[in-house]
Amino acid sequence: MKRTHRQLSEGILMTDQYQLTMAQLYFRQGLHTMPAQFEYFYRNNPSYGSHQAGYTILAGTGSLFEWMAEERFSENEIAYLRQQTGRCGTPLFHRDFLDWLLLEGNFEQIRVQGLQEGRVAHPTVPLLTVMGPFAMAQILETPLLNHMNFQTLIATKAARMRQTAGGQPILEFGLRRAQGYGGNTGVRGALIGGVEASSNVGVSHALGFDPKGTHAHSMVQAFSALGGGELGAFRAYAEIYPDDCLLLVDTINTLESGIPNAIRVFEELRRKGHTPVGIRLDSGDLAYLALKAAQALNSAGFTETTIVLSNQLDEMVIWQILSQIRSEAPRLGMAPEAIIKRLVFGVGTALITSQGAAALDGVYKLTAVKDSGQWQPAIKISETAGKTINPGAKQIWRLYDRRDKAVCDVLAMEDERLDEVSELQLHHPVDFNVQRTLKREELSRVERLCIDLPRHGPDSPLEDSIAQMRLRRDQDLERLDDGVKRMVNPHIYHVSLTRKLWELKQKLVRERSFIANQ
Amino acid sequence: MKRTHRQLSEGILMTDQYQLTMAQLYFRQGLHTMPAQFEYFYRNNPSYGSHQAGYTILAGTGSLFEWMAEERFSENEIAYLRQQTGRCGTPLFHRDFLDWLLLEGNFEQIRVQGLQEGRVAHPTVPLLTVMGPFAMAQILETPLLNHMNFQTLIATKAARMRQTAGGQPILEFGLRRAQGYGGNTGVRGALIGGVEASSNVGVSHALGFDPKGTHAHSMVQAFSALGGGELGAFRAYAEIYPDDCLLLVDTINTLESGIPNAIRVFEELRRKGHTPVGIRLDSGDLAYLALKAAQALNSAGFTETTIVLSNQLDEMVIWQILSQIRSEAPRLGMAPEAIIKRLVFGVGTALITSQGAAALDGVYKLTAVKDSGQWQPAIKISETAGKTINPGAKQIWRLYDRRDKAVCDVLAMEDERLDEVSELQLHHPVDFNVQRTLKREELSRVERLCIDLPRHGPDSPLEDSIAQMRLRRDQDLERLDDGVKRMVNPHIYHVSLTRKLWELKQKLVRERSFIANQ
Repeated sequence: MKRTHRQLSEGILMTDQYQLTMAQLYFRQGLHTMPAQFEYFYRNNPSYGSHQAGYTILAGTGSLFEWMAEERFSENEIAYLRQQTGRCGTPLFHRDFLDWLLLEGNFEQIRVQGLQEGRVAHPTVPLLTVMGPFAMAQILETPLLNHMNFQTLIATKAARMRQTAGGQPILEFGLRRAQGYGGNTGVRGALIGGVEASSNVGVSHALGFDPKGTHAHSMVQAFSALGGGELGAFRAYAEIYPDDCLLLVDTINTLESGIPNAIRVFEELRRKGHTPVGIRLDSGDLAYLALKAAQALNSAGFTETTIVLSNQLDEMVIWQILSQIRSEAPRLGMAPEAIIKRLVFGVGTALITSQGAAALDGVYKLTAVKDSGQWQPAIKISETAGKTINPGAKQIWRLYDRRDKAVCDVLAMEDERLDEVSELQLHHPVDFNVQRTLKREELSRVERLCIDLPRHGPDSPLEDSIAQMRLRRDQDLERLDDGVKRMVNPHIYHVSLTRKLWELKQKLVRERSFIANQ
Repeated sequence: MKRTHRQLSEGILMTDQYQLTMAQLYFRQGLHTMPAQFEYFYRNNPSYGSHQAGYTILAGTGSLFEWMAEERFSENEIAYLRQQTGRCGTPLFHRDFLDWLLLEGNFEQIRVQGLQEGRVAHPTVPLLTVMGPFAMAQILETPLLNHMNFQTLIATKAARMRQTAGGQPILEFGLRRAQGYGGNTGVRGALIGGVEASSNVGVSHALGFDPKGTHAHSMVQAFSALGGGELGAFRAYAEIYPDDCLLLVDTINTLESGIPNAIRVFEELRRKGHTPVGIRLDSGDLAYLALKAAQALNSAGFTETTIVLSNQLDEMVIWQILSQIRSEAPRLGMAPEAIIKRLVFGVGTALITSQGAAALDGVYKLTAVKDSGQWQPAIKISETAGKTINPGAKQIWRLYDRRDKAVCDVLAMEDERLDEVSELQLHHPVDFNVQRTLKREELSRVERLCIDLPRHGPDSPLEDSIAQMRLRRDQDLERLDDGVKRMVNPHIYHVSLTRKLWELKQKLVRERSFIANQ
């Protein structure tokens, strides 16, 4: 697309048509500035086929806030809306509505409360609560979901890879097979969730990270076609990057050609006083080749050089590689942990597209509107019980047991203070028969989870840094039960309602069913 | 992300770091302007788990060309590269290289040959051939793959949905769960491959389409919370959009509330001389509810109104819905085809993320470099036989049998004229034992598949229209064997090499293995 078209499609018109037709209706009904409240939550943790997540890592709010701060209806957008006609050829959007949009079509009056980025999140828990004028809060639905769903999805996948990689660094390499420009926003989620850095040049610089990368097979191919061969290619590379020399060794034959040639060039570098960085393996049995590479490098005295592994890695493949190294290394007379410590994982498609679960099912639901100064809870009754939303303005609390492990997230009414009661009566969100009572003394801590996320100041997502998000992630993961963190069949983390909220929900369901049956 | 950061990350720095480190090496070696040739191809048709594609629809070239025409290294990008340092703190990119990038860092000298957008494509066939100065052709790898892989992936998924929907219109609704801004570029692929229109406002306008959409559950919820109920919401909608009235009927209870209320409002519209458009069903058993809705609408005399179905549809669900309608309609005394003719499918996540196969495995491989006026074929030998690339400059031919069905794509050397020979000797790309001879009289047509895709003029992707691409798609699909178009276990379409190309490949493999073993 042309740059102007890209800008148009990433601006305030990055929304669904029905948000605009509804906004015009609210405008006509005089409801457009009525305070409304929407909640963002998702229903299911990502399931990747044979394995699944027991939690997610929340990400996207900072990007969303930056987008909200800059995007608004201008003459350019209004001109497009003005030309759109209905079936009978008359303009779909009327002049008074468009005039209002041009004047007031921005997100300045929107307030957001929620979890901070990097925190561990769970299904059905309202992660963001949006309050503001009905029309603009409605238009925000699509861009909010687009930002939050995707970055949370990728942050979660990255966290899982980090978990199986056992602390070894992970680099993101996925732009070539990413879903279009999503390859850029995805990198932000990946950095929050678990990767050290990315090969993506533009977005890395935009986010203040150094992009990573050395050379591809094509360099070796070109030298081979011109008669210089792999060794010539490696020497040329070492000459220009003597202190950053990491060589890709599998273009011709990893064990017969790539590794011996790399060692020859490393020895030349060493003689000149440089320390070579390492090698990259991009095909074949990566665990076995990593062991053989380490053996050869050790023999030549390069006991510290990095071994980068890439080629269709995901969390399960990384896990398998480490298991295989642990079982095969002793047979080759090597200490597995010494080899594992040298590994870096380059992950591509599986991370940036969240292979196996390409979308998070997050939704944005109206929970209340303010009429004559009173909040009126809104509810949507689904024929699927689990999809009936929890009504009204809420606060979320996280309960920690005596080991300081999180045991439960509790949805409460906004005026309930769970940190001040001696006993908590908790209800399953759907099943009336499932309830339990927790005594305060069984808990080490009751944490208010959602905070105001202001536009400015230290708590604003705009001021937040990826370093802080990573810290939150590590703290929350540390406090999450190992069972919930399992890669396959994780324990289900509990999410409950307080009795008060549960009773409101039942009351509204009864009333609405009554109306529907009249 | 901030708008400036988005622009940075979608500009010429939308590439991988190693493209730049290699470009600097080519610059230092004096190879940066050496003519090089790269090919874009993919290895496997998308496989979605229980079902898989037997072909793809090529898409993305127009977007890529627009990107190439506008993006180049400017002071802004150079400033970021200038500040990047290596491990020892010295600048990674040297001044002479950056000066050259600023001056020559654009795609003006790149030539592209290939298939036109909308055409049916097959694995291993070079779909685009890029020729140009080595350094810039190398930097193009990442953005080219990003554009082509994703749009081709989505066009293919859309074509499959169009196939099972039996010609009924499909609308794209996926932006809320799309992979970030990929939700925009994906729409272009979807429009080329099989959808009529999209709900995505910005990108629809950018591409010259009217965005589609009416209202969401939240509108009904708001009216319910304020005392107006579903009927009040529907009436308000009909008042503003009397000639474009399509109502979502499942917020409270589809059969008990939504459909009766919609019919009441439709009757009011009819009395005022308007024709209601239809209803939308977004939950429950869509096939059964479509039948019940049609029955109720018919009884009220609305025998033509549209029934839009949405909620996690993909090609298999659409197929299932039509099958169920065909088997259930007669039992309800209805003609299935009359109902099917009223259906419109709204597809979301499954299309825009290509559910089940989130990436196309397209690659961009160096096939030749020009040294002292002579093209030197480049080859990468993989330890997996099928991954060894086909060397040198090539032309692709598509053979049609007497029924005018495509039987085979043939990779030939550039100077071979397959339309002028009386007999074709074809080789399996890998297996020496598989070869066959085709006589010219068995074929109705031998088509030269790849054309020059110039910057300007009628054959340029920049001048191409989505209408033309859809025409090509329909023609190619018509000429594709039904077996190859099967949704599950499709026939494998044949891709072969001419004897001449096959012999060159064998020669190079032998030479390289010889070098590697020295």
